Amino acid sequence: MTKTTLLAALLATALATPAFGQGRPVPPGQPAVAADVARLRDSALKDDVAYDIIEGLTTEVGPRPGGSPAEARARAWAVAKLTALGFKNVHIETTQMDTWQRGKETGEVISPFPQPLRLTALGGSGATPPDGLTAEIVYFANFNALLAAPVGSLTGKIAFVTNAMVATQDGSSYGAFGSARFVGPNIAAMKGAAAIIIRSIGSDHGRGPHAGQTNFAKGVTPIPAAALSVSDADNLERMVRRGKPIMIKLVLTPKRIGMQETGNVIAEVPGSDPSAGIILVGGHLDSWDLGTGALDDGAGIAITAAAAKRLLDGPAPRRTIRVVWFGDEETGGSGAAAYFSAHKNDHHVLVAESDFGADRVWRVEFRLPDAAKPVGDRVAAALAPLGIVRGTATGGDGADIALLVKDGVAAINLNQSGTRYFDYHHTPEDTLERVDPEQLRQNVAAWTAMLAVVANAPEEIAKIPPTTGK
Amino acid sequence: MTKTTLLAALLATALATPAFGQGRPVPPGQPAVAADVARLRDSALKDDVAYDIIEGLTTEVGPRPGGSPAEARARAWAVAKLTALGFKNVHIETTQMDTWQRGKETGEVISPFPQPLRLTALGGSGATPPDGLTAEIVYFANFNALLAAPVGSLTGKIAFVTNAMVATQDGSSYGAFGSARFVGPNIAAMKGAAAIIIRSIGSDHGRGPHAGQTNFAKGVTPIPAAALSVSDADNLERMVRRGKPIMIKLVLTPKRIGMQETGNVIAEVPGSDPSAGIILVGGHLDSWDLGTGALDDGAGIAITAAAAKRLLDGPAPRRTIRVVWFGDEETGGSGAAAYFSAHKNDHHVLVAESDFGADRVWRVEFRLPDAAKPVGDRVAAALAPLGIVRGTATGGDGADIALLVKDGVAAINLNQSGTRYFDYHHTPEDTLERVDPEQLRQNVAAWTAMLAVVANAPEEIAKIPPTTGK
Repeated sequence: MTKTTLLAALLATALATPAFGQGRPVPPGQPAVAADVARLRDSALKDDVAYDIIEGLTTEVGPRPGGSPAEARARAWAVAKLTALGFKNVHIETTQMDTWQRGKETGEVISPFPQPLRLTALGGSGATPPDGLTAEIVYFANFNALLAAPVGSLTGKIAFVTNAMVATQDGSSYGAFGSARFVGPNIAAMKGAAAIIIRSIGSDHGRGPHAGQTNFAKGVTPIPAAALSVSDADNLERMVRRGKPIMIKLVLTPKRIGMQETGNVIAEVPGSDPSAGIILVGGHLDSWDLGTGALDDGAGIAITAAAAKRLLDGPAPRRTIRVVWFGDEETGGSGAAAYFSAHKNDHHVLVAESDFGADRVWRVEFRLPDAAKPVGDRVAAALAPLGIVRGTATGGDGADIALLVKDGVAAINLNQSGTRYFDYHHTPEDTLERVDPEQLRQNVAAWTAMLAVVANAPEEIAKIPPTTGK
Repeated sequence: MTKTTLLAALLATALATPAFGQGRPVPPGQPAVAADVARLRDSALKDDVAYDIIEGLTTEVGPRPGGSPAEARARAWAVAKLTALGFKNVHIETTQMDTWQRGKETGEVISPFPQPLRLTALGGSGATPPDGLTAEIVYFANFNALLAAPVGSLTGKIAFVTNAMVATQDGSSYGAFGSARFVGPNIAAMKGAAAIIIRSIGSDHGRGPHAGQTNFAKGVTPIPAAALSVSDADNLERMVRRGKPIMIKLVLTPKRIGMQETGNVIAEVPGSDPSAGIILVGGHLDSWDLGTGALDDGAGIAITAAAAKRLLDGPAPRRTIRVVWFGDEETGGSGAAAYFSAHKNDHHVLVAESDFGADRVWRVEFRLPDAAKPVGDRVAAALAPLGIVRGTATGGDGADIALLVKDGVAAINLNQSGTRYFDYHHTPEDTLERVDPEQLRQNVAAWTAMLAVVANAPEEIAKIPPTTGK
């Protein structure tokens, strides 16, 4: 609520001030904001389309893991919705993905302090025997401690790795603390562990475990791997401090179900100048299965489509705006790979993904060729009244656009505030209630302003020499 | 955090001011606070015993439903802890209880919007067939709408009752909105429903369902009865608003397992004057099974024992302080009934229960005979510096002390602030993380001050003419 109040105050101030370029002096170093851009931006602060998309998708589809029948229902839902909104060239492009499916998942401390544990299998986890696996745990205070364990020292044991992830506005703590999930199970398997449990990669203190993908190297047999809720992990850590051996029973029965269908949903706002290229914006349609994927990434697809819709409803922009809702971002990026394979030779001039929840945009970052730097300056100026600062790092974030960025396509980040994102990320709590409609509208306004500037920019936006990514 | 900050400010002010009775003018209408009472109260603001009890019980025992092996472990843990703290006459008094045991519990929308639902069986619920029950729901916006449904109108259907419970500081909304759980299932069964699902009786917006007891009248066959998480109920209500028939599948396999052992744990601070009677303070040791019962009622037993311990460590009080940690409060009060049966003729002069979480005491209420009114005035004066106001209603709250209060024993309420209690009540989230150590200490200080005044009061505290209970 604090954040909402602050934002409301900030927006009230911003809106009470005539938009830059309408008679007010332009701040030093910032170009003027065109009147039509300011008008589009400010009217987007009253947007209801983005919330309507999230409400519809979470109510009428709900969880939609990559490769599942629910994800297929989500694609059908998306086509109906984008068509109803008036987008052109709305269609699905399918592909196949190697699919992992959750099974039963329970955990309990058997001794010395019997009690249940709330946990969830990590994507890619191996299975225990159907009636479970009981073993002593070996405690590691962090990922580095697990790395330092001698090979063979975990034979027959369950590794238990904790972490003290703390929220950061830019989300950087996910990378810093996420190793326990990303590669911890593979390391534990290589050291002989029978299974691994980790403290969820999250900044909350609740009982909802954080799901997420883990990956085993070729030749390493996947072991059962689960995330405890942060609360359960902290409780287990208190037990560890009592100094007695701790026996845990795990039942995890996920399985691989082979190649299944996934796919991308594509919609366009046609541009008036086919030679001016395509701006790709979007997010991912799939979600983890514990919540309804309101934040991850219902919000991202909703924000980008709602912004594109605002340009759809006006005069045709110079450049085509292509909205892509990718499939299977969460477990392997099959959707992004299929898109790149099919469309890498399309004339993309800029890509941007929204995949960090629904809280307000606080920063903009660019990856633009030198000749297009003025475009970035105009975007930054148009965003400033929304309380958005210009960062110094290079843009191009987003798993679904990574291949295009690596291929040299220019990119913009509209970074959302991440201070509460990892309270809900991949948990049962990722539901509609976590979306703040006022902050969501600020996102739509930011994306609308960005699109209004870039889609009509007279400058050429050429590719940037190939890079291995930022 | 806001509440903590406010409390810290309040306590800082209170403590920076010399305690009343130490040279400062006494406010009109308030008696002076004895120096030893003020000293005991203020030193209790540094208490660590209460937190230590909650930490130990939640870590080493965890969930402890009445009649379960875990509740028996909790009794053994309690005897060890109270003995280690130095209490006298520490012992267990067992009894038998008719026990209900949770089974599998899953729910899902089958059509038109297939997705899983998070729910929990209510205590006393009947069972579905092992492979579940699928039926159409009939929606009721509140309990009164369910009451108004014609008999037979629910045959073969699943009743779905919502409620918009809002938090109140005094907890009064629990009574006002709780009917959907307390008696909704019985009403639905009498109208022919195959099952009932209700929106959890809670003030949160999360995915953790709120457990709790429901009761069926004699001759009414229990039907499957479950509480959806507030978030899931709101999602289902959004589906209802789409206007299509909604089919739900429920799997609930609880069962009755007959008479099992429960019991009370009793400990004493012996008084110096056996003729002066006994003050009974306590809470309940059992908990619901989804959380670890940190708030309900680990906090209550911890607060009352920690306060009694402060008197135990000083000169013997005039009156005996008896700490009782009751068994089976949650499903039927077998512990309280057994205590009353065994001890109704003990010379109780005052009873007080703490069973409303761990947030600060904001109000004190009395049920005292006229001759003992000055005792109440001195208690109120001793509590005022802790930010506690004097209420106008009559004291005697607490399911475990209800029989004694009805029998005429005087009582005091130290009402805790309930603005966030029903966010966590009976949910998986009722764990140690929800305890604010600073507010917990304020509770211990309040109970210590109350005990210091009442245990040493020279006045006789006689029974009050029998009442039917407030």
